[in-house]
Amino acid sequence: MKENKIGSYQFVAEPFHVDFNGKLTLGVLGNHLLNSAGFHSSERGFGIADLNEEQYTWVLSRLAIELDDMPNQYEKFTVDTWVENVYRLFTDRNFALINKDGETIGYARSVWAMISMSTRKPADLLNMHGGSITDYISDRPCPIEKPSRIKVSSSEVASLMTARYSDIDINGHVNSVRYIEHILDLFPIEYYKVMHIQRFEIAYITESHYGDQLRFYKENGEREGEYNVEIRKNNDDIVCRSKIIFI
Amino acid sequence: MKENKIGSYQFVAEPFHVDFNGKLTLGVLGNHLLNSAGFHSSERGFGIADLNEEQYTWVLSRLAIELDDMPNQYEKFTVDTWVENVYRLFTDRNFALINKDGETIGYARSVWAMISMSTRKPADLLNMHGGSITDYISDRPCPIEKPSRIKVSSSEVASLMTARYSDIDINGHVNSVRYIEHILDLFPIEYYKVMHIQRFEIAYITESHYGDQLRFYKENGEREGEYNVEIRKNNDDIVCRSKIIFI
Repeated sequence: MKENKIGSYQFVAEPFHVDFNGKLTLGVLGNHLLNSAGFHSSERGFGIADLNEEQYTWVLSRLAIELDDMPNQYEKFTVDTWVENVYRLFTDRNFALINKDGETIGYARSVWAMISMSTRKPADLLNMHGGSITDYISDRPCPIEKPSRIKVSSSEVASLMTARYSDIDINGHVNSVRYIEHILDLFPIEYYKVMHIQRFEIAYITESHYGDQLRFYKENGEREGEYNVEIRKNNDDIVCRSKIIFI
Repeated sequence: MKENKIGSYQFVAEPFHVDFNGKLTLGVLGNHLLNSAGFHSSERGFGIADLNEEQYTWVLSRLAIELDDMPNQYEKFTVDTWVENVYRLFTDRNFALINKDGETIGYARSVWAMISMSTRKPADLLNMHGGSITDYISDRPCPIEKPSRIKVSSSEVASLMTARYSDIDINGHVNSVRYIEHILDLFPIEYYKVMHIQRFEIAYITESHYGDQLRFYKENGEREGEYNVEIRKNNDDIVCRSKIIFI
């Protein structure tokens, strides 16, 4: 039964998915985490494909990733994923990143809601499919902090971009992985030469669409190497907030 | 023997790899083609991993893709790849894209050189590994035109960007797939709503690096729906040229 609660998926660090250090990029890792979440939930009957037929879809609300290392180019790695909690409107899904030698080199936490595609209103997870998702709750530990509250008060635009064709997903929104890449691009390459990202958090707040002007605000956090980022669009609608900790 | 000449690799169209139409993006297809080339050559002993030990690497010079269709989200598809010709300084490698029903929905042609990583000079392919690459030449047809000569004379900048962290690969260059994405982003999403890309060509001329200012020039080609693009950097060095045909 424990086997069935945890999904385990193998990947390889492809050449165009590593950075100049030859390490898997965080954006690509994010993509693999979200795919693993999709595989895990579909295989258990509460994935997007099942939900779509009923006009419901999963929406990622928060993601926090902590890393000791990243796979190198051409190395195989594994993403484990499991459900930690199910509430009425949210579920907590965790991840472990395991390198080619079987060592756990990172963990991630995510928070998801399920919404109706017609009304955009959240669904009651405890009543979906008779609450069957709760059968898969696992007590496997995830020893990293939960996503935090991120505050950004800066009014100085650090970067500006317009959402283009390649940013847009099948729902017509800027895709969740692209935000990660755009946020990482706020930092000069010198940072990545001498440091690595120890923790990355992102909270998705409002969807953005093709043609939206996205403004990126960045400020120092409490600790050395900690940065808070906010993306705003149009009339100061907040699109997402992110915290990046380099060490 | 024919089996061994052609490499065949399976993929699936992941959610963050499809566009707003739910079709695999051309950038992601390009990534899969280049990965398939890597798998095919490594499995036969003339891949990057083998070459690196001898300080040689493959460099993609040209890529031309023609498409009738693209895989839809979650669909499996196959990339076949084989070597068509080997010359002293270049090799022609072709590809077929096969959908979940086994129908060929596209073809691609590519031209590669092998260079020394220390001197950046091209290697003699017919003398590498005793010319063993020629053992894999296949006569499977690839019924699309070879890459053409692309000319762009415009001096009006269509788009401007600075190469950032996420653009850079393990060699310190802007990666080949990123150029494709940046070029596709020159076209408004309305194009992709009413048309699709029937042919896409790119010729890689000079490498660009972190911090380079890339200027994109775009002009109409000879036919309706045909566009020629040139990317230039710094003192008018030409980075790459591309031709895009929408139908």
